[in-house]
Amino acid sequence: MKKIKRALISVSDKKNLKNLLKVLSRYKIELISSGGTFKEIKKFKFKCLEVSEYTNSPEILGGRVKTLHPKIHAGILSKRNNKSHNKDLKDNNFELIDLVIVNFYPFEKTLEKSNNHLKIIENIDVGGPTMVRAAAKNYNDVAVITSSDQYKELIDEIKKNKGSTSIEFREKMSSEAFSETAYYDAIISNYFNTIKNNDFPKKKVIYGNLIEKLRYGENPHQHAAVYSKNKILDIKQIQGKQLSYNNYNDIFSALTISKSLPKNLGTVIVKHANPCGVSINKNILKSYHLAIACDPISAFGGIVSCNYKLNKTLALELNNIFLEVIIANGFDSEALKVFKKKKNLRLIDATNFVMKDLVKFSSANESVLTQSEDLKRFNIRDFRVVSKKKPSKSQLKNLIFAFNICRYVKSNAIVLASQETTVGIGSGQPSRLDSCQIAIDKMNKFQDLNEEVVAASDAFFPFVDGIEKLVQSGVTAVIQPSGSIRDKEIIKFANQTGTVLVFSKTRHFRH
Amino acid sequence: MKKIKRALISVSDKKNLKNLLKVLSRYKIELISSGGTFKEIKKFKFKCLEVSEYTNSPEILGGRVKTLHPKIHAGILSKRNNKSHNKDLKDNNFELIDLVIVNFYPFEKTLEKSNNHLKIIENIDVGGPTMVRAAAKNYNDVAVITSSDQYKELIDEIKKNKGSTSIEFREKMSSEAFSETAYYDAIISNYFNTIKNNDFPKKKVIYGNLIEKLRYGENPHQHAAVYSKNKILDIKQIQGKQLSYNNYNDIFSALTISKSLPKNLGTVIVKHANPCGVSINKNILKSYHLAIACDPISAFGGIVSCNYKLNKTLALELNNIFLEVIIANGFDSEALKVFKKKKNLRLIDATNFVMKDLVKFSSANESVLTQSEDLKRFNIRDFRVVSKKKPSKSQLKNLIFAFNICRYVKSNAIVLASQETTVGIGSGQPSRLDSCQIAIDKMNKFQDLNEEVVAASDAFFPFVDGIEKLVQSGVTAVIQPSGSIRDKEIIKFANQTGTVLVFSKTRHFRH
Repeated sequence: MKKIKRALISVSDKKNLKNLLKVLSRYKIELISSGGTFKEIKKFKFKCLEVSEYTNSPEILGGRVKTLHPKIHAGILSKRNNKSHNKDLKDNNFELIDLVIVNFYPFEKTLEKSNNHLKIIENIDVGGPTMVRAAAKNYNDVAVITSSDQYKELIDEIKKNKGSTSIEFREKMSSEAFSETAYYDAIISNYFNTIKNNDFPKKKVIYGNLIEKLRYGENPHQHAAVYSKNKILDIKQIQGKQLSYNNYNDIFSALTISKSLPKNLGTVIVKHANPCGVSINKNILKSYHLAIACDPISAFGGIVSCNYKLNKTLALELNNIFLEVIIANGFDSEALKVFKKKKNLRLIDATNFVMKDLVKFSSANESVLTQSEDLKRFNIRDFRVVSKKKPSKSQLKNLIFAFNICRYVKSNAIVLASQETTVGIGSGQPSRLDSCQIAIDKMNKFQDLNEEVVAASDAFFPFVDGIEKLVQSGVTAVIQPSGSIRDKEIIKFANQTGTVLVFSKTRHFRH
Repeated sequence: MKKIKRALISVSDKKNLKNLLKVLSRYKIELISSGGTFKEIKKFKFKCLEVSEYTNSPEILGGRVKTLHPKIHAGILSKRNNKSHNKDLKDNNFELIDLVIVNFYPFEKTLEKSNNHLKIIENIDVGGPTMVRAAAKNYNDVAVITSSDQYKELIDEIKKNKGSTSIEFREKMSSEAFSETAYYDAIISNYFNTIKNNDFPKKKVIYGNLIEKLRYGENPHQHAAVYSKNKILDIKQIQGKQLSYNNYNDIFSALTISKSLPKNLGTVIVKHANPCGVSINKNILKSYHLAIACDPISAFGGIVSCNYKLNKTLALELNNIFLEVIIANGFDSEALKVFKKKKNLRLIDATNFVMKDLVKFSSANESVLTQSEDLKRFNIRDFRVVSKKKPSKSQLKNLIFAFNICRYVKSNAIVLASQETTVGIGSGQPSRLDSCQIAIDKMNKFQDLNEEVVAASDAFFPFVDGIEKLVQSGVTAVIQPSGSIRDKEIIKFANQTGTVLVFSKTRHFRH
């Protein structure tokens, strides 16, 4: 237990200060403070010494230098059980500071509100992190508080111990303090790297705020959590059981696809992080039915993502099958009423979810792979018709639709489409030929398939056999990246069979 | 351009200092320093003022407080074009510091060498990061150097500009300085969280060192890099073309499987991040042939990972097909000689690769999912025979082998095995039944399959149909987690058909 005799308070966020001051005053803890915090404390009529008076050194450079003084830092850093430290303090007429309550200039908030570089830079706190780091280092003797969220815990601790703090408390606060300073500088560092377009600095620091600890990870014996760069997620759960790790994973997969579709159009069904049905149709009920039709068995227990506002008619339809999650760009009140009958069903409002051009990353043991997201928007110049037969307007529309979906299917990916609906998806195979077969098998089970079918491949066909299999199964047009040494053979085969063949500029592996 | 009149030097890493000092002295830059750096500078016979003399304030607390002084920090933080700042400096008789050369107490190195908590804590630098952050904030006027690796760049800059630095240089160094402070505190924060077993703190900061920028990401229009928690990777490329993003991804997938196999045994073939063949056999040549036999078409252009030292005989065999990468726990010199004939072939020595019990993470847009790795080692008590028919010793061995491989196949995963060799792998399907079919199709193409075949499923069968399909195809024993409401039906089916059925305690999804 360490008695608190003296506390230094310097807070940018002045929330909940009064209550804390009352408690500190009750235990006769001397206060030192400066600037706005000092004024606030005086406003509440508590006794407090100004830092400049305490150090006998003026506050200068418009506040840039006030606490950076040996009297402050020796008071924090001194080891209480070290004779030589005690002597140094005595010789210099310095006193101990047992509690440091500091939160930093709001760099992150400034960044959210402003793009004035000078203003942003001015909000890099120098004195604050120094005091916090000093106190956190010396947690054996000093308690450090870095957020107004911790006041309650501090008050409880002080009351329980009659003006003292326990080592457990100080250690916990020290750990949270270093989280805070690391997080603070991570944001500053990322800001500098962002303005310099430096995605891959020599030392990279990634930061996140805990959104929630999850019941478990992909499997019950793994523990897990979800974090965000922001304080809250850009999706909002409005009903249902707690989201699981696999739910989150599927939701992000589904939204990546949904948000690539035309605005307010399109239904995506995801199972095991792969789409098992996608359809664009102005009639949202039809869009849903067509998406389901691609693989009705897999859709069971899956996730439906609607890139539009969900209405009652569709809600009634969705209630007919077992789904884990339904995502939509809002739900109308009638739809919500329908879903209330299934209170476990998770509903996600994704209105505010916007795919950002960020570098994404995934770790493997001690390594981290990082790359920009595949957000390329296609336009007609990204494609080249290489067959003699030219695509009809409808074929071209379906080819581009299929190629876009294909990029979100785990490689090797083959997508068969008709009427802007996937009619067969072949995913996750080491062999492209196998992915063709899987997609064809699905297509053959698709009910009432009357229109012609086109195919998309996420990477080039290395041999003719893949495209041959597709054409034999009734596919009339194929889109694929070029790049095989057998491209010519493939074009020849297309021409011999009257197949439309389109080469894309880009490849779209996704693993 | 800003002239350097005065520099503060305080370095823990004293490498390459002499050369730098020569240049600083040539441009008549005044030096301030303290402690070990001061002694080093005097040893080289350069003029230098001690910090305590400069500030007229003694170094105290055994060095914990020396530079934390307003004279130092006003000298760094003062805006040169601000009249009020200039007046403050004049009034206090403070002078400008234009260059800050600081590297920190070696916290990371101490952590690598020691687990003495007090020693580790003592290596948290307080003064160093404060000066660096102050100088980096005021980069408009001050240059900051945080690593001896930057001396050459600094020397070039000073020489080029005759004792001055450009704003571009100062801005770049400032950005690198904040990388450095963020990285430094990230390590400290992670240390505290690790000793407290706190995998999911409220604010999490993940750090990495750039290993290399890659030519591109999963696709040529994505840019990418690989990072590590350490300074170097735990795998070593000893031959061949530069590794691509997809190579790295496949290598990590392959190694995760290889390292789960018995020591010095087992060949794994990976394509598109999924295994397409795995075999354990004391005869390494046989092990390789059996692994290839599972899916010889997919193995083309794949990655072979040998959990043993690679010899000449196998090297000759491997040279017969096109492979992107070969991984082994070392290569004997004869094997290396064989591979020299294919100079593009990438060879990876993974002797030092050890799977660590780390929290892994992957990002999606602004969110990050994080979970512990699925490293569970199986033992016999993790399994329960639920059928009347009990497994033979060989069946049990193959069931555990298949179940272990199954956890590394993208879900839904079905693995068929015989003689500790995969004879069919069904991966990445939204429907478990489809994964069964894919695995069976592979098995039916497996040459010379004489022994009985067992099956593993990464999660429970929701219906009887999956296991029925397997048994109809000749499978004699099945392992799966329990949990379906139809478990009893499945047990009944196993008993009716004389199939061995084993329930595992754990599920093993992997997406």
